[in-house]
Amino acid sequence: MDMKKQDQNLSVSSPIFFAMFNNSVYAEIIQQSLKKAVFPGQPHKLYEPIRYILSLSGKRIRPQLVLMGAALFDEQAVEKSISASLAIEYFHNFSLIHDDIMDKAPLRRGKPTVHQKWSDNVAILSGDALLVKAYEELAKSPSDKMVPLLQLFNKTSLEVCEGQQIDMDFETRDIVSEAEYIDMIRLKTSVLLGGALQMGAIIAGADKHDQELLYDFGVNLGIAFQLQDDILDVYGDPRTFGKQVGGDILANKKTILYVKLNELIAPEDKETLALLLNGDIAVEPQKIEKMRMLYAKYDIPTLAIYQKEKFTEIAYERLRAIRVADEKKQSLFTLANALLHRSK
Amino acid sequence: MDMKKQDQNLSVSSPIFFAMFNNSVYAEIIQQSLKKAVFPGQPHKLYEPIRYILSLSGKRIRPQLVLMGAALFDEQAVEKSISASLAIEYFHNFSLIHDDIMDKAPLRRGKPTVHQKWSDNVAILSGDALLVKAYEELAKSPSDKMVPLLQLFNKTSLEVCEGQQIDMDFETRDIVSEAEYIDMIRLKTSVLLGGALQMGAIIAGADKHDQELLYDFGVNLGIAFQLQDDILDVYGDPRTFGKQVGGDILANKKTILYVKLNELIAPEDKETLALLLNGDIAVEPQKIEKMRMLYAKYDIPTLAIYQKEKFTEIAYERLRAIRVADEKKQSLFTLANALLHRSK
Repeated sequence: MDMKKQDQNLSVSSPIFFAMFNNSVYAEIIQQSLKKAVFPGQPHKLYEPIRYILSLSGKRIRPQLVLMGAALFDEQAVEKSISASLAIEYFHNFSLIHDDIMDKAPLRRGKPTVHQKWSDNVAILSGDALLVKAYEELAKSPSDKMVPLLQLFNKTSLEVCEGQQIDMDFETRDIVSEAEYIDMIRLKTSVLLGGALQMGAIIAGADKHDQELLYDFGVNLGIAFQLQDDILDVYGDPRTFGKQVGGDILANKKTILYVKLNELIAPEDKETLALLLNGDIAVEPQKIEKMRMLYAKYDIPTLAIYQKEKFTEIAYERLRAIRVADEKKQSLFTLANALLHRSK
Repeated sequence: MDMKKQDQNLSVSSPIFFAMFNNSVYAEIIQQSLKKAVFPGQPHKLYEPIRYILSLSGKRIRPQLVLMGAALFDEQAVEKSISASLAIEYFHNFSLIHDDIMDKAPLRRGKPTVHQKWSDNVAILSGDALLVKAYEELAKSPSDKMVPLLQLFNKTSLEVCEGQQIDMDFETRDIVSEAEYIDMIRLKTSVLLGGALQMGAIIAGADKHDQELLYDFGVNLGIAFQLQDDILDVYGDPRTFGKQVGGDILANKKTILYVKLNELIAPEDKETLALLLNGDIAVEPQKIEKMRMLYAKYDIPTLAIYQKEKFTEIAYERLRAIRVADEKKQSLFTLANALLHRSK
């Protein structure tokens, strides 16, 4: 659900990505459609927070994925996919509003979060209304595709809720396996990318097998992207990373690095790790450096990069397998390369 | 959204209502369908609160309205309406979970509320998941009716959110007009009754005009019922009312009585009213009695009963106008009579 970190990261370090999206006709379609979407004036506290969160923009990656998923199979289907695309954007923003309450986050994209600017109650209720608005947009999709669209949207939404709950459960657990961690990020952030792409494919009339390949492309891309974010949090360039390097370490956050270390750590280093995790504020200035030393000792960065590459390869393999002409896939390969900082 | 008070009230004071519903084949269909609806075991904190709130039962009036709305036009449509019926029940329970957070309510149907038993975060997220589950059930409805069902469900859901926000806005306002108050209860509690009935009518293939008459019946019935609840809160029999008589007065709640009094009160009584509203705890034992005296002075109970009767008559008139045989309408007239404590 929470890709704000990645957004910030990309906005600084990936000019190619930005150039591509800012010039994209899809980004423009979405921007115009969002402008046209008028919310009622009253009750003010219900609809003003919705206008506010939607105005904080972001790069609208998810709604673009819907349009790209449609275009892959049928350029003519792009226009018919705009409502589904808005539904995905509304859903994403609903999840941001509610996640920010749960995480007690004060800022979102550099601005006060909804619960911070208004109140928890306003954030709960305007989030609810935005989720319903997502379904309202979805209901404008082609009626012959309504049932599969609705089923996919429901399944995805429920999985995002599951991912968020599992992530919160992790906060109070000592041991989280790598498989559990990857399943959590799959649910919390990746299925929405896959679901967005597949919705476009459904509207374009793609067959079930191609739909599933495209869905898998999105999910694996999302996992690779989240793993990369975990790695950059510790090893990113502070000048381009766009947020505090080492933030996850300071927050004792479960990441791919953390769960790998926990799996491999030898008994003699367990006390050091425990001290780092339970240390008081005084130890924090050195906490990042000491954790990096532990990571290095067990070759964790290499192992994490290996995992990122593994999911990247699965994603690319799925995209290659889709039975449409290669040139149709180019924009998705370009997007994936930009997201994953790959030059090829 | 919040009909807990009415539920309690009815459960004590309306044996006829209870007998009817407990023997109802519709109640049994819903109970069995809810039993069959299995929620995943994990994540536990996401799905256990859902099982919990659904187990607190209540009388399942809203889902029964879906089935009754279907049966009015086509007995054969009842079975096809079960999913929509569950969708309405899930939506209602979602709204209870989130309303209870916003109202900081410790109890629901005599048991701890979800946020009280778990936490606000758990209540926010499990409420979200239950709303998505409502759409999941709705998506199982006959696919040729999917678009109108979805549109009605979305419109109704959004209105319920609006009603809740307006109700919260009222808490910080001194003056609320009668029209504003009635519009709030229409949105917050009544449109869901109308929407439930109309969903059944849609599935049964009723024509648009009859659908709208049935919807209006439900909405006006809901308004009359809420007005009655306001009246009973002050003038109900403590032995049968099922909650503290005068509770609305003690909480300075905006009710039909309160807004009427505010409209009619003469300048010389305004100070008395202000003292009652802003009085400290010490004055509370007499607060109910003094407020009753003010109400009596301006003949407020009569005016409120007149309003209740007005909406009741509109409801009955709409039901009479529906173009199906009278005997088909009998169960809805019986339900309305039971809800509104009418013997005829």
